[in-house]
Amino acid sequence: MTPTIGILIYNDVEELDFVGPWEVLTPKPLIEARNHVLTIAETTAPIRCSKGLRVIPDASFDDAPKLDVLVVPGGRGSRADGRHVLVDWIRKVAPGLQWLTSVCTGAFLLQEAELLEGKRVTTHWAFIEQLRERGIDVAADCRYIQDGRLITSAGVSAGIDMALYLTGQIHGIDVARQVQRMIEYDPAPPYADGN
Amino acid sequence: MTPTIGILIYNDVEELDFVGPWEVLTPKPLIEARNHVLTIAETTAPIRCSKGLRVIPDASFDDAPKLDVLVVPGGRGSRADGRHVLVDWIRKVAPGLQWLTSVCTGAFLLQEAELLEGKRVTTHWAFIEQLRERGIDVAADCRYIQDGRLITSAGVSAGIDMALYLTGQIHGIDVARQVQRMIEYDPAPPYADGN
Repeated sequence: MTPTIGILIYNDVEELDFVGPWEVLTPKPLIEARNHVLTIAETTAPIRCSKGLRVIPDASFDDAPKLDVLVVPGGRGSRADGRHVLVDWIRKVAPGLQWLTSVCTGAFLLQEAELLEGKRVTTHWAFIEQLRERGIDVAADCRYIQDGRLITSAGVSAGIDMALYLTGQIHGIDVARQVQRMIEYDPAPPYADGN
Repeated sequence: MTPTIGILIYNDVEELDFVGPWEVLTPKPLIEARNHVLTIAETTAPIRCSKGLRVIPDASFDDAPKLDVLVVPGGRGSRADGRHVLVDWIRKVAPGLQWLTSVCTGAFLLQEAELLEGKRVTTHWAFIEQLRERGIDVAADCRYIQDGRLITSAGVSAGIDMALYLTGQIHGIDVARQVQRMIEYDPAPPYADGN
């Protein structure tokens, strides 16, 4: 099986929210033929990300192929007035998915699409209370959390961990470990607290 | 001081190699006005990254402003025939820099620009021997290494750690810690060896 994986992008999407999973899900030459991954936006016009990076989407909502996996990243655009077109599209494609995932505040788009009811989820630490106030069961202090076919992750860089977990679920743990080694994801952030 | 930070991009640049540092160096609203960060390519035509992401550069070699910091990411394009135009440009701008940095196989572009002689550096684990064969002193098993104004990092995701370290050197450790918390860079990769 070669799953078709769509990564939603939109104006003011957070850059690392979607490029982290993109990098994990497109490992060459390791599993080059194992995933079909594309960025999808409302139109194929260039989008401007939250910090200003400009990206040309691979497909529009109208011409996207049928998806097996959807990644919904966060960023300021997930809270912008124009988000309803994103929410409507997510609601439309969700029933056909094998895996529905979010990174950071992308969880708010899933909530507005009414896809989080009765699920245990997570989001960026600074937005956990806000999501709880919408009646959602939000876990703190985890990088990602699976509930059935739904995997939500914490803020920004946590999308990398989530995508590695997803890779293991789809292709097996050995493949996920090889991808992790390929991208040298064995982080040692500097300036640890107390140092 | 607001340093001007250029991130070199080119066809077949590795996506996370440059988006990781981009994310770290552009934190909003935390230090929005503290850095001026832009992507720079040979021309402003869209580039196609190693895994297919298409990005529109902010500036070309001809119209880029004077840089204080340069980030040179890696990827297949760093080994392509057309790399010499990148090497020539790096050699030209290097003397004016306060910090010269690389991610992953970006170190090979610096080596070809003759900027690594007598320096201790690192690169992606799979390319360490190849860089040593060029007479360079390459450290293994570190995320990044500083030698004077030069900071080189290991593969792909290690650029995030390097950019956090650089942020601490430019703006102070407290700022770097805030950025780290903003992007929730407290990774817990799944499927640890032996689990």
